[in-house]
Amino acid sequence: MNYDITIDNYQTALREGSAQPLDWWQACRERIEQREPEVQAWETLTAEPATLDARLADKPLYGVPVGLKDIIDTVDLPTSWGTRGYLHSPSALMDAALVTLLKQQGALIMGKTVSTEFAYFTPGQTRNPHDPTRTPGGSSSGSAAAVAAGMVPLAFGTQTAGSMIRPASFCGVFGFKPTFDTLSAAGVKSFSPSLDTLGWFARHMEDICTTYSALTRAPRIKPLESLAGVRVGVRSLPGDTPLDADADVERALAHAQERLEQAGAIVVPLALDARYEALVEHQKVVMAYEAAQTLASEYARLSEHMGPKLVEIIEEGRALSHSRYLEARRAADAMQKALTGVFASEVDVILAASAAGVAPKGIDATGDPLYCRAWTLLGVPCLNLPLSHGENDMPVGVQLVADRWQDARLLQIALTLMGQETPA
Amino acid sequence: MNYDITIDNYQTALREGSAQPLDWWQACRERIEQREPEVQAWETLTAEPATLDARLADKPLYGVPVGLKDIIDTVDLPTSWGTRGYLHSPSALMDAALVTLLKQQGALIMGKTVSTEFAYFTPGQTRNPHDPTRTPGGSSSGSAAAVAAGMVPLAFGTQTAGSMIRPASFCGVFGFKPTFDTLSAAGVKSFSPSLDTLGWFARHMEDICTTYSALTRAPRIKPLESLAGVRVGVRSLPGDTPLDADADVERALAHAQERLEQAGAIVVPLALDARYEALVEHQKVVMAYEAAQTLASEYARLSEHMGPKLVEIIEEGRALSHSRYLEARRAADAMQKALTGVFASEVDVILAASAAGVAPKGIDATGDPLYCRAWTLLGVPCLNLPLSHGENDMPVGVQLVADRWQDARLLQIALTLMGQETPA
Repeated sequence: MNYDITIDNYQTALREGSAQPLDWWQACRERIEQREPEVQAWETLTAEPATLDARLADKPLYGVPVGLKDIIDTVDLPTSWGTRGYLHSPSALMDAALVTLLKQQGALIMGKTVSTEFAYFTPGQTRNPHDPTRTPGGSSSGSAAAVAAGMVPLAFGTQTAGSMIRPASFCGVFGFKPTFDTLSAAGVKSFSPSLDTLGWFARHMEDICTTYSALTRAPRIKPLESLAGVRVGVRSLPGDTPLDADADVERALAHAQERLEQAGAIVVPLALDARYEALVEHQKVVMAYEAAQTLASEYARLSEHMGPKLVEIIEEGRALSHSRYLEARRAADAMQKALTGVFASEVDVILAASAAGVAPKGIDATGDPLYCRAWTLLGVPCLNLPLSHGENDMPVGVQLVADRWQDARLLQIALTLMGQETPA
Repeated sequence: MNYDITIDNYQTALREGSAQPLDWWQACRERIEQREPEVQAWETLTAEPATLDARLADKPLYGVPVGLKDIIDTVDLPTSWGTRGYLHSPSALMDAALVTLLKQQGALIMGKTVSTEFAYFTPGQTRNPHDPTRTPGGSSSGSAAAVAAGMVPLAFGTQTAGSMIRPASFCGVFGFKPTFDTLSAAGVKSFSPSLDTLGWFARHMEDICTTYSALTRAPRIKPLESLAGVRVGVRSLPGDTPLDADADVERALAHAQERLEQAGAIVVPLALDARYEALVEHQKVVMAYEAAQTLASEYARLSEHMGPKLVEIIEEGRALSHSRYLEARRAADAMQKALTGVFASEVDVILAASAAGVAPKGIDATGDPLYCRAWTLLGVPCLNLPLSHGENDMPVGVQLVADRWQDARLLQIALTLMGQETPA
């Protein structure tokens, strides 16, 4: 079967008898055999054969192969948190809550995908499926690459700064970071608990939506006729004028704006003042301060094994004062409140840069999360749309952002957009 | 030595040579020998002898024996999460972040204290030190009881509904639930991640303050000359008029108000409308919905071993719609913002009931967290003051509440109050 089917179409094929429950799994294993030697997205693969409980046949993710970032606990697979083995657990006492939710929806765990070291900056071995000399982005490197390479239709990652949206943009897939706290992080290694957010990658917008409804039990997302009446503000953070990104990103934003307008949306002016710009620095403070607390035990026992970037952020965090941390948290609170006012009265969604450009050359770094930091600190839902290509035909995405808890509305707008005719 | 010394006085005694570094540990072990057969506060005790790293001698918690609720991971002690063994780990791969922070401040881990089942309602064996026929409260039962019985000067617990403030009130100790997210929950079992908050119990207000500064690196809290100019609003949630608590609580509130006024504070009118009352129900929704997600794996594998109350809340949570959950989260957000306005313009702290009365008879239930639910949902810091006694001379506390991140101010007000002459 075609590995690139959507989740809903696969369920239809199963019901109609034109596909068997383990067909997709098998198609994905074949893709992995072909693509994994180059891409190296997987830390661990589940042993074959997969088994499926037929009582779950009516569940929305029945038979869907799924990748899990290797910071997510499972009872039957090892976890090494991107440490290349200096911290390693052959199995967890309990599956992460997410894993049980996925299994209860019929999903099949394909394996653990490569993470950077503790989901920070030190990269693993994964390469960009579009060009193996380039990074897939991070920290959810393996999950984004595995989906982009067609090795699974769905994979989970986390975002603390830009670890979902950036790799989604670099790898040319949809990546959704829902509102902070949407999915339980139980059994997921934390880095900065007030920022860490579970999200997922898919090649089809429909699959992002199906997964959202399956995991939250929210009603199914249905596309609108058009985007008539939808107000879009165009604003990256940081980067009002001039946008500090390259021409590829400028073109991707212009192209996305054009498509939104062709679908009926109205681009409206949006003024976000310097206090929003300042959130970028506040995010760095929150992340460093909390990482120093959260990884205090790992740092005390294992710092000699840690990469220099990880050591650096922990030491930065240890040097930050409590009052500087509180200043950042208070600023985030205040701007979250202000942004809710903006969304209530001025715009439905914001169109913003996902990253500063296409995936950089080299796999010794994962690129800059700059354009995601402020949104992550605000806890708002962000969705990478893989609409454009730039330098060397590499993918370059843009993100749509909505107010907290407006996930369903954001997904509906994106689903509608993707269902419209592509402009000539 | 006297087990009831304050942390700062112990440090002074160590510096002056009138105490040795393991004296307090030894005094606590003796108290445990005397009191534990009746109180049963401990799930596990650390093996003797304790060892102390002399290089930590200048740290604020040097030589301070500490109890940890048995949902907090340690590498060298088992954890059983209040399950009486149906889920049990002989050791964790890593200490909880809190444990490393405590050790780095020179604290000595005395052991794990009894928790209710997964920090919910099914009680362990612990008894109230003031009357062994009564509950110590829950879910941080053992930590509150161990401190009240003089078995340790300091013990940690968590609050999701009322699991710090209620046992503090029932056991007659100070109990502090700081602003949500103040201490990293890494390595602490979660129940409802948007509510779970680490806090601590002590017999002396000074020790609450010393611990706050040691763990957050905030400046030392110093008492004011008086509470002149401090504005106090009196308001429990729920329970405007009439307060749905008993005469003991009414008297405790009146007594606390009198002491605050004698210390110079001004009681000012405070109107919190019905939207604040509604937070009590919203807290139940958030807690049940998130518990069902967070404990999905435990429920899938172990539900037959679980107590009926735990099964009930998980099933309740599974039956709740996503939109009902979002309604509760949005209400919490809105009222959190509104309350910040109240604290900015009307009052410095709120005086509220900690519980509905003294510790109930029996150890088959842990009492009602009703008067803590709304504050926990709001994420605000809450401090139980053990100022009164009620029926059968049992302790009955009141709580002081401040705005989020105003922890230092709240502690300063309480420290000042406790340092004033007690009114005749």
